Amino acid sequence: MAIKFEVIKECGKTKARLGKLFTSHGVIETPVFMPVGTQATVKAMTSRELDDLGIHIILSNSYHLYLRPGHNLIAQVGGLHKFMGWKGAILTDSGGFQIFSLGKLNKIRDEGVFFNSHIDGSKHFISPEKAMEIQIALGSDIAMVFDECTSYPAGKYQIETAAQRTIQWAKRCKEVHHEPNQSLFGIVQGGAFKDLRIENANKLVELDFPGYAIGGLSVGEPKSLMYEILDYTVPCLPNNKPRYLMGVGAPQSILEGVVRGVDMFDCVLPTRNARNGSLFISSGKLSILNAKYKDDFTPLDNECQCYTCQNFTRAYLRHLYMSKEILASILGTIHNLYFMSTLMKNTRLALLEDRLLEFKEEFLAKFLS
Amino acid sequence: MAIKFEVIKECGKTKARLGKLFTSHGVIETPVFMPVGTQATVKAMTSRELDDLGIHIILSNSYHLYLRPGHNLIAQVGGLHKFMGWKGAILTDSGGFQIFSLGKLNKIRDEGVFFNSHIDGSKHFISPEKAMEIQIALGSDIAMVFDECTSYPAGKYQIETAAQRTIQWAKRCKEVHHEPNQSLFGIVQGGAFKDLRIENANKLVELDFPGYAIGGLSVGEPKSLMYEILDYTVPCLPNNKPRYLMGVGAPQSILEGVVRGVDMFDCVLPTRNARNGSLFISSGKLSILNAKYKDDFTPLDNECQCYTCQNFTRAYLRHLYMSKEILASILGTIHNLYFMSTLMKNTRLALLEDRLLEFKEEFLAKFLS
Repeated sequence: MAIKFEVIKECGKTKARLGKLFTSHGVIETPVFMPVGTQATVKAMTSRELDDLGIHIILSNSYHLYLRPGHNLIAQVGGLHKFMGWKGAILTDSGGFQIFSLGKLNKIRDEGVFFNSHIDGSKHFISPEKAMEIQIALGSDIAMVFDECTSYPAGKYQIETAAQRTIQWAKRCKEVHHEPNQSLFGIVQGGAFKDLRIENANKLVELDFPGYAIGGLSVGEPKSLMYEILDYTVPCLPNNKPRYLMGVGAPQSILEGVVRGVDMFDCVLPTRNARNGSLFISSGKLSILNAKYKDDFTPLDNECQCYTCQNFTRAYLRHLYMSKEILASILGTIHNLYFMSTLMKNTRLALLEDRLLEFKEEFLAKFLS
Repeated sequence: MAIKFEVIKECGKTKARLGKLFTSHGVIETPVFMPVGTQATVKAMTSRELDDLGIHIILSNSYHLYLRPGHNLIAQVGGLHKFMGWKGAILTDSGGFQIFSLGKLNKIRDEGVFFNSHIDGSKHFISPEKAMEIQIALGSDIAMVFDECTSYPAGKYQIETAAQRTIQWAKRCKEVHHEPNQSLFGIVQGGAFKDLRIENANKLVELDFPGYAIGGLSVGEPKSLMYEILDYTVPCLPNNKPRYLMGVGAPQSILEGVVRGVDMFDCVLPTRNARNGSLFISSGKLSILNAKYKDDFTPLDNECQCYTCQNFTRAYLRHLYMSKEILASILGTIHNLYFMSTLMKNTRLALLEDRLLEFKEEFLAKFLS
C-alpha cells in the first residue's frame, strides 16, 4: 500500500506535530529519526539488534545499491526488505546526493547525470526515469525524486538552475512512477535563497506528492542559517503530509527541526560517530579514545538503559577502540542509536504532554553544556 | 573454587570420553570447543550473542592483555570476567605461544623470555612467575603454565632443551600459584619425538596438575603426525583430569582428537575464517566471495538453524563481504561458531548414544567430500 500520514496532535507553542506514518511494513510514530543503511545494512547492526533498539524505519542508498550489488539482483529476490532481512519500513534516497558527493567527473545535463563509479571508475548515467526504475526495483516504502543537490556556498544563478531542474526532474519522476506500494516524495531545493526556496516549494506542492523533503541542507552552511531556511520553507508545505529534513542528525538540529514542523530525519552521524569512538551522552559528546577513560569503570552514560551501558564500562570500551576491535563499533553503534531512539521517544512524549519547549530546553542545556 | 572434572561416560570403541567440567562460572560439557577472545572479546561477538550460541567457555590471551590494556587495569575492576562482561568460564593461555609467534627479538633464557612488543616495540620480560602474576590478575578459571613452544620442524636438541625448560618452568609456576579460585594446567611439549613427549608427560604428571594440555601441535606439522603424537601422548595423562589440545580447531582434527581422548580444544580458525569469508557448512568450507554465489538466494547451509542461515541468503552475505561491511564478520562469525557448537553437541550426543565412530565417519564423509 501507499503510505498514509496522520497528524495526531499539534504543539500549541511551536510548529511541531505528533504523527503516525502508516506503511506496508509497520506504523512509524513521528517525529522519527531514520538510521542509515547505506549498503543494505545499518553498519555493525543485525536486523534483530535494530528491532531491539525500537527502530522501525531505515534509509538506504539507491546510488550504492545500484552500483553494488545492482538493483536488478535485489529485485530478483523480491526487493530490498527480503534481500537484507529487514521487516521494518525503508526509505530510499534517489542517489542524487551521492552522485554529487561521491561520483567522479559528473556531467549534469537536463536529461540526467553522467558520472563515474567511486568504486571502480566505471561510467554510468542516471536520469530521473532511471532513478525511479532503481527505486521501484528496490521496493522501498518511500522513494525520493531525483534532484540536483548543490553545495554551500554557491551562487544564485547556479542554485536557481539546479532548483528549476529539480522541479523538471520531479515532474518526470512522477510521470513514470506508477508503483502502488511505494510512495514518492518530492524534494525542495533552492539553497539559502528565500525566494528560490519558496518558489521551489510552491511548484513542488502543485505536483501533489504524498510527502515532501527539504534537501540541500546540512551541506556546510551554519546551523543558524539552516534553521532560518526551515522557518520560511516548512510553512509552504501542506500540513497533512509528512515533512522530511534530509541528512540532518545532530540531536540539537533535530530538535530545532521538530519545533519548525519537521517529521522525519536521517543521518549517518550516530553510526559513523560510533565507529570513530564519538559517543552521545546526556551531557554531550564523549570521545572514548581520550586517555582519561583508561581506568574509568563507570558506564558511558549512567542514565542510559542500553545494552552497552548496562553491561560495559568506559575502560572496556576504550580498550576495544584502542585495539580496533569490531565489538567497539557494535557496542558504540548500539549506544548511539539507542540514544537517538530515546531522544525521539522523549520528544514525542513531550509533544503529547504539551511540554515540548521545556523538554527541548532541558535537553539542550545539558547536551550542549 | 578450583575446577572439578568428572568423566560421565567412556566410549567403548575409542579413547573418547563424555565429561563435565565444573567451574565458578558454570558447568561445561566436554568434549568442548572454546572460541578465542584474544583481546578480551571474541571478535565481532557481543556476550549475549555468545550466550545465544550456547558457548560457556572462551579462551583469552595473557600476552595481548598484558600489553594492552594491562593486567593490573583488569585486576582493578575485579578481573577479566567483569572487565569484558562475560559470565561464562575463561581459560587464559600463558603468553608463551604468542611471545614466540608475535613478539620480536625474543631472547629465551632459563629465567624467562625477553621480547619486544608487537604493538609498539617496547621491551618486556616474562618469567614463569610473571606469567602467573598476570593470569592471577586476570582471574581466569583456568590458567596455563608458561611454556616454551617450538616450531615445526626443529632439531631434537632444540626440542629437548625447550621441553626440559618447560618442565622447570611448570615447577616454578606451580610454586608461586596459590590462587584457590583458579586451576593451573600443565603443558606437554616434546615436538614430534615420541621419547621426549612421553618423558615430558610423565614428569609433568608427577607435578600433579588439575588438568593437562598438549602444546606445540598444529604448528605446521602434517595432520597425520599430530594424530600419531596424540596416540602416544594422551595415554600418559591421568584419566580423571581434563586433557586440552591447544590451538586445534579444524572440525576433522577435533574429531580425531576426541577419539584419542581429548576433552578441550581452542582455535582462532572459526572466527578468523568467518572474517575472511570462509564459512563451514556440512559439506565442507564455502568461500562466500566466489562469484557463483552472487545470485544464490539460498541460505549458507540448508541444514543449519543459526540466525544467519535462518534469515539471510548467500547472495546477501556475499554482498556484505564484497562491500567490506562489519555485518559480514558478525553474520559469518555467528554461523561458524554455531557450526562448532553444533559439532560438539552432536559429538557429545553420539558419545552418549554409543555411536561416536559412526557419527565421525558420517560427518567427515560429508565435510571432507
